[in-house]
Amino acid sequence: MSPRPKVRVPTAAAIIIGNEILSGKIADQNLAVLALVLRKLGVRLEHAVVIPDDLRRIVSEVRAAATAYTWVFTSGGVGPTHDDLTIAGVAKAFRKKVVVHPEMDALIRKTYGERLRDGHLFMARVPKGARLVQTEEVPWPAVLMKNVWVLPGVPEIFKVKMKLVESVIAAASPFFSLSVLSTLDEGNLKPLLDSVVRDHPAVEIGSYPRWTDPHARTKLTFDGGDRASCEAARKAFVASLPEGGFVSEEG
Amino acid sequence: MSPRPKVRVPTAAAIIIGNEILSGKIADQNLAVLALVLRKLGVRLEHAVVIPDDLRRIVSEVRAAATAYTWVFTSGGVGPTHDDLTIAGVAKAFRKKVVVHPEMDALIRKTYGERLRDGHLFMARVPKGARLVQTEEVPWPAVLMKNVWVLPGVPEIFKVKMKLVESVIAAASPFFSLSVLSTLDEGNLKPLLDSVVRDHPAVEIGSYPRWTDPHARTKLTFDGGDRASCEAARKAFVASLPEGGFVSEEG
Repeated sequence: MSPRPKVRVPTAAAIIIGNEILSGKIADQNLAVLALVLRKLGVRLEHAVVIPDDLRRIVSEVRAAATAYTWVFTSGGVGPTHDDLTIAGVAKAFRKKVVVHPEMDALIRKTYGERLRDGHLFMARVPKGARLVQTEEVPWPAVLMKNVWVLPGVPEIFKVKMKLVESVIAAASPFFSLSVLSTLDEGNLKPLLDSVVRDHPAVEIGSYPRWTDPHARTKLTFDGGDRASCEAARKAFVASLPEGGFVSEEG
Repeated sequence: MSPRPKVRVPTAAAIIIGNEILSGKIADQNLAVLALVLRKLGVRLEHAVVIPDDLRRIVSEVRAAATAYTWVFTSGGVGPTHDDLTIAGVAKAFRKKVVVHPEMDALIRKTYGERLRDGHLFMARVPKGARLVQTEEVPWPAVLMKNVWVLPGVPEIFKVKMKLVESVIAAASPFFSLSVLSTLDEGNLKPLLDSVVRDHPAVEIGSYPRWTDPHARTKLTFDGGDRASCEAARKAFVASLPEGGFVSEEG
């Protein structure tokens, strides 16, 4: 039994951009990294797509995803060459112009100094209205246009930007995941869980059989955006367990 | 300069199915494998999507892709458990029933013998009208429904099935790729190439600068479904090169 979630959790889509991935020249590494980060943040990744360096495809995918999901993440196509179309595509998806972001422009000029070339300044271009996200730990910013994160394809840099993603999403939608281990199997737990699920609609309750664990037959999870609600649901469940049914709890 | 292809090459879409990939529990390995095989076959992979184990999503993605691309490849969701929905989804996409394929049923019974369980027979279910593809080298078949290959998610098995894919696609649409290395750069090659491109519309001609090669500045490719046409285009190009412009040829 896995009760269907009663809670609207934040959702996400990933748009991986690059001919080199579709042609097999490079294997994407970023989707798996993003999936893990989102899972930890309690954001459900529901869709991922890999598309060529094609402005029309970028525009249509970004526009559709920005409406359908809480967060959208693009990967790739943000360098200075002719096939780097993501900034233009995201701008067009929101019917905005591409503009030079003054802070980014200043940061680039300061960073490169005398080595500065036009190609470097290309990276200061953002969709009008985009926000730069930066932290003390990661001073080189990520571009966030409404709910769309415009991230680089280079895996090492993509990973660093994940810290910026975490800082914004954890603040926007906190997520708590508590758990309990029980000696009971799902068949015996069902009536107890049904009651807790009914009484705690703001908490997403899951149950997972543990086939190989000699101490506990089932793990129960209590997830949600409000810690007190998750704790109340877990407390009610633990109180309903028969003698010997409780093993331990976490979170 | 990369002349736009003048030739309609076969295209493909990949549909990766599985909650475990979107949740970050497992990193997909099959897309990169498929991309390389298709490149070798001269099939252009134009779209790849990762979706959850959700019947409606499978139906809509398969239906759209089967119309838009020459070939479609699904990966995952073909086991015997409740979240294995791909066969049902592909059948529904074509408005067909799921039926037991007699040959597959016989093969499974013969293979498992006394160890046979209902879960094994589940693998004999196919969309009505589906074809089993098998070779002497790979006797366990792959399911091909019209232009949709229904492939397993397990990377080791997915790789084995690629041999079946190659056997069918190489026969359906042969592909030849010839090349020439030249000492000339793209700027000097442009007038020569323009002329060859114009005179050989059935051949896809590409040019690729080689920044780090001390012997050749550019690689030219002559791709297409007819070997004689590709050879004629290359011959015309080589004949047009000035003294010392030719380095070597391949294919």
